[in-house]
Amino acid sequence: MAKANAIELGEGRKSRGVNKGVSILNFIFRILAFIGTLSSAISMATANETLPFFTRFFRFRAEYNDLPTLIFFVVANAVVSGYLLLSLPFSIVLILRSNAQRARMVLMMFFDMAMLTLFDSGTLLTAGASAAAAIVYLAHKGNSRVNWLAICQQFNAFCQRTSGSLIGSFAGIVLIALLITLSGVALARRP
Amino acid sequence: MAKANAIELGEGRKSRGVNKGVSILNFIFRILAFIGTLSSAISMATANETLPFFTRFFRFRAEYNDLPTLIFFVVANAVVSGYLLLSLPFSIVLILRSNAQRARMVLMMFFDMAMLTLFDSGTLLTAGASAAAAIVYLAHKGNSRVNWLAICQQFNAFCQRTSGSLIGSFAGIVLIALLITLSGVALARRP
Repeated sequence: MAKANAIELGEGRKSRGVNKGVSILNFIFRILAFIGTLSSAISMATANETLPFFTRFFRFRAEYNDLPTLIFFVVANAVVSGYLLLSLPFSIVLILRSNAQRARMVLMMFFDMAMLTLFDSGTLLTAGASAAAAIVYLAHKGNSRVNWLAICQQFNAFCQRTSGSLIGSFAGIVLIALLITLSGVALARRP
Repeated sequence: MAKANAIELGEGRKSRGVNKGVSILNFIFRILAFIGTLSSAISMATANETLPFFTRFFRFRAEYNDLPTLIFFVVANAVVSGYLLLSLPFSIVLILRSNAQRARMVLMMFFDMAMLTLFDSGTLLTAGASAAAAIVYLAHKGNSRVNWLAICQQFNAFCQRTSGSLIGSFAGIVLIALLITLSGVALARRP
């Protein structure tokens, strides 16, 4: 009886240690994904370039809101980074709680809820990033068949900025996939 | 004792009924998603239009492989529909098995495995569909700021076909989201 109790206590302590590790990883991934998506949104939203010459009919100026797809990209990144910011306090509570039974309850509720929301944010972010990638690719390469010219020869700095801002977004997608895996691990260890 | 057994038996039967319902829904959603993605891939891959006039420098012919993004769309849809087709036999086995204990084991393994694969397929399909939607939108509306002309005035039938083939793909995304929810339900009911 005493032995069984000791084993149970030991297992409880070990399980608490793993839970704490999962909570801390969860927090770190959330912060990194937040930084990635926010910097993507900001660097895309502030991208603009004005060429030092103009004609009567064209002003040679490129901005992100010339292309509706890039607007969607900025909105998707802003929404997901907002969700990640709002979820950070819960993530901190998970780390600080030391009462095992209660912490596990909160953890489970949090992971159940978070998994669905993370799945939605991941899908939104994937949609935004891949649509923007399609447009940025077109800006770089153009398409001779349908007569769309590559604009990156003229708007070089603009193109570099928009291409760069894709990185944060795709890093965010990978981190959200890792967060979903973490939630899956936590749910699989449900007693 | 006898009463407890009777209750257990009753619960087992009820649980088996729910499992059967989940398995059948799983099968139906998989078939529908398979049809959606396959018809998307086929209708996009066979889309082409040749205009009845030509000049020395341009042949006025539009095909899906003029645009790399649409090739990605076809590949993504073909891959996901292939996965759904291969997973159908497992789904049928789940419905036919009546031995509750074994069926539940298989069910759990299947749903655990399927959830990750479904998540990957969903992400791939979302990426393909949203990138293609960005390009199809551009083909319809064009963009005066960067001087990309709308090609749908000329290639009307081609544009209608490509726009239509997006429907099957987005329906597939919704069905895969439902399948993931079903897996989540099955996993949450784990004893």
